[in-house]
Amino acid sequence: MFTDFKYTADRPAYLQLKEYLKEQILSGLIQAGERLPATRELASTIRLGRNTVIQAYQDLEEEGFIETVPGQGSFVSAVVVEAGTTTRIPWDQLTTPYAASAVQLDIEKSELKWERGMISFKSIAPDGNLFPTEDFKRAFLHRFALEGEKLLNYGYAQGYRPLLEYLANYLKQKGVDPEGKAILVTNGFTEGLNVVLAGICAPGDGIVTENPTHNTALKIFKLRNLKVYGIPMTPDGIDVDALAATLAAKPVKAGFLIPSYHNPTGLVMPPAKRQAVLEVFARHRVPIIEDGFNEELRYSGAHVAPLLALAGKGNNVVYIGSFSKILFPGLRLGWVVADRALIATLESIKRSMNIHTSFLDQALLYEYLQNGSFEKYLRRARKVYRQRHEAAIRLASALIPHRRIWGEGGLHIFVELAPQINARAVLAACYRRGVLFMPGDLFYTDGGGANTLRLGIGRVTEEEMAQGFKIIGEVVSMLEGEKSASI
Amino acid sequence: MFTDFKYTADRPAYLQLKEYLKEQILSGLIQAGERLPATRELASTIRLGRNTVIQAYQDLEEEGFIETVPGQGSFVSAVVVEAGTTTRIPWDQLTTPYAASAVQLDIEKSELKWERGMISFKSIAPDGNLFPTEDFKRAFLHRFALEGEKLLNYGYAQGYRPLLEYLANYLKQKGVDPEGKAILVTNGFTEGLNVVLAGICAPGDGIVTENPTHNTALKIFKLRNLKVYGIPMTPDGIDVDALAATLAAKPVKAGFLIPSYHNPTGLVMPPAKRQAVLEVFARHRVPIIEDGFNEELRYSGAHVAPLLALAGKGNNVVYIGSFSKILFPGLRLGWVVADRALIATLESIKRSMNIHTSFLDQALLYEYLQNGSFEKYLRRARKVYRQRHEAAIRLASALIPHRRIWGEGGLHIFVELAPQINARAVLAACYRRGVLFMPGDLFYTDGGGANTLRLGIGRVTEEEMAQGFKIIGEVVSMLEGEKSASI
Repeated sequence: MFTDFKYTADRPAYLQLKEYLKEQILSGLIQAGERLPATRELASTIRLGRNTVIQAYQDLEEEGFIETVPGQGSFVSAVVVEAGTTTRIPWDQLTTPYAASAVQLDIEKSELKWERGMISFKSIAPDGNLFPTEDFKRAFLHRFALEGEKLLNYGYAQGYRPLLEYLANYLKQKGVDPEGKAILVTNGFTEGLNVVLAGICAPGDGIVTENPTHNTALKIFKLRNLKVYGIPMTPDGIDVDALAATLAAKPVKAGFLIPSYHNPTGLVMPPAKRQAVLEVFARHRVPIIEDGFNEELRYSGAHVAPLLALAGKGNNVVYIGSFSKILFPGLRLGWVVADRALIATLESIKRSMNIHTSFLDQALLYEYLQNGSFEKYLRRARKVYRQRHEAAIRLASALIPHRRIWGEGGLHIFVELAPQINARAVLAACYRRGVLFMPGDLFYTDGGGANTLRLGIGRVTEEEMAQGFKIIGEVVSMLEGEKSASI
Repeated sequence: MFTDFKYTADRPAYLQLKEYLKEQILSGLIQAGERLPATRELASTIRLGRNTVIQAYQDLEEEGFIETVPGQGSFVSAVVVEAGTTTRIPWDQLTTPYAASAVQLDIEKSELKWERGMISFKSIAPDGNLFPTEDFKRAFLHRFALEGEKLLNYGYAQGYRPLLEYLANYLKQKGVDPEGKAILVTNGFTEGLNVVLAGICAPGDGIVTENPTHNTALKIFKLRNLKVYGIPMTPDGIDVDALAATLAAKPVKAGFLIPSYHNPTGLVMPPAKRQAVLEVFARHRVPIIEDGFNEELRYSGAHVAPLLALAGKGNNVVYIGSFSKILFPGLRLGWVVADRALIATLESIKRSMNIHTSFLDQALLYEYLQNGSFEKYLRRARKVYRQRHEAAIRLASALIPHRRIWGEGGLHIFVELAPQINARAVLAACYRRGVLFMPGDLFYTDGGGANTLRLGIGRVTEEEMAQGFKIIGEVVSMLEGEKSASI
């Protein structure tokens, strides 16, 4: 007995012995009331120190698996784990319609998957190699020394106070008037949007948005049973006349807009159009949810203020921010900026969802941001991504037969092919040749965009772009040839 | 001009100058086209180094606020932030019924608030002073050195692979059969429950639970419009006959149970009752959601296996775990263990909510758990909390006139007063004397429990208990006197 115990070097020996003995007890191999070997004896059998055995026994007693009777030895407690009847639940029949939609709309499950060796333009995640890990470590050591215990204990739903203050100042730097506004920290943009929609849009409500728009936002609208009205994009952003017509004709509860480095088109809405859009929404008294997701990835042109800033003292813009497209997306940190009373309501919703966002992560981000590391990183990251973006535009223009290449910033470009070319057919052929991208139809509110695709460039080299775009171009050319031959 | 710039020592000077200049531009004090002073000149005006000014100008140019014309100087760009009409949205009329419920059910908003100097028994949070911050720091340094970049970038919805594996083994140590099961990491128990309910309970569905039960769970049931059937508690846990009768008579979609260190009563359901409860649910083919929230805080008696273990190869128990009542609640980490196919569905729901839980936090918890620090801490924490719990039982029994004191473990005890005493009246009087606790009615599914209260003891000293319980006891005695006088 006990001769099959195997010790590996990666964890404390007494823990491994304890776990081994627990399994013996739980599986009934050692029965309740049975006496365990003396510590010296077991130590000799398994060839580990006696202290290891003593510590394992102490832990087992502490956890109620054995009892030690002084002078008599250690005995196994009556630990009941015998299973009764085995019950099977037909989960596939019991899950909710909501769950079925969540699965059906989950592109991680339905779309083609990356495999080793492929060149992928699917993601718009930032390049981890650029992350300032040393600065982050310094931020950890500094902040943790100051208030480690506090950061590891429960915090507040609204957020970590110093981060809230930093963000308020950061937004002021974008021209936002802080008066009457407040901030709520969320687990990234995605949760921010969920919190906002839970607060202001009930199932069946209408929401107006650019068409195409951010596919995750679109998924969330559908999951929440919102009626989505997509407004076409012109080359300088949303078609304002079409927007005005929809707001006049349809019952719309809110707008969702991505005015800067729009996903997927990469467009920046010019200042004059921003004013026009604000004016149309104001006229219909419809609030705007502004996605400021990668405002920081501006590569050229003058600073453009977010709608939240242009709204001045108005309370009609709800802004959702995140650094996830440049900095530490793994931490899942985002924030909602809005009217103070609305934020108080959203705070209760956030609390009901998950109490609050990790206080450790919030404090680390704060420390990193406030000591100047962020600006240093931004300069470097912008330079790299600007070059990558310029290369992407140049290479795609040269290598992929297209009707239009869209994109002024961010970590992606958007390609519109000739109308007769189906991007999913292109993807299928490219996939066989080891190249992946996002078919544009995923971003369309109305099933359109069959001839479009999004190319994420955050994590690829210029060589990979040249190689991958060439393959995409060849496939498109081939399909164009087939189409014209068949006409 | 620029003489009102004020430099403070806490952040890099160039950042402060940049922000100052941005505010001047954004507020229109420096107009588009205007020329900024030469760097040497400004440096002299504000009495900082010229390099500081150069760096601020470079950043402003980088961010599109100014343009530098070689040989001519730096000019302010056309940064538009002029607000149009100020639009006010009547948010109080536009928020959803869901939002109104979230606010109304948010006890942080409705219950009495702690004020400085008060003794509070409201919280069941752990004592931050016990946290092993040095071990946590070591875990950070080790894990971050190994894969910092990876941890800061996007991860996977299901969770950080090594943590998932650790948890699978950890559950095996509780007697759980891993076959056919999988784990999903969530932002704490609260999100875990939300994910599970989104997956298996639609609005209007019935859920059966102990009465009283965890107040946050109850809040979530109400927010999701579930019909809650509360089953009375006997001194050894849920009344099985009443449970069987309800399952036979009512349309129930799932059960929610806290078999170990039940919140608020602190009871541990004995093994025989666990088997009986499993059997009743199995007979009606109703799944169980098991809250294992503070199983680790067992102070005496033999190990009791969770329902998930007793269900053996069955797939009818969905277990939600968390270490938040002992370890690092600020990280908000929890997990759901269930049938593999169900977890795949819940993973899509989790992804739609917030993509995934912080990979940094998951990796740090993993590192901390696997290197043996956890067991070391548990021994120490259990000892402290056991003493605190014993003292609480002893002191409450002696100082508070009661019908019954409940509690076998965890960070709280539950006091049942004489039936004619209203705990809210007790609370109101105690609050005036600087003592706070949770009125028990918050935990009842049916408005009952008016004569009960929960005393959280995780963060109070024995002296504070003696002092606070004495005040509670005096108030109760006084009210009992009044009641008997009025009869």
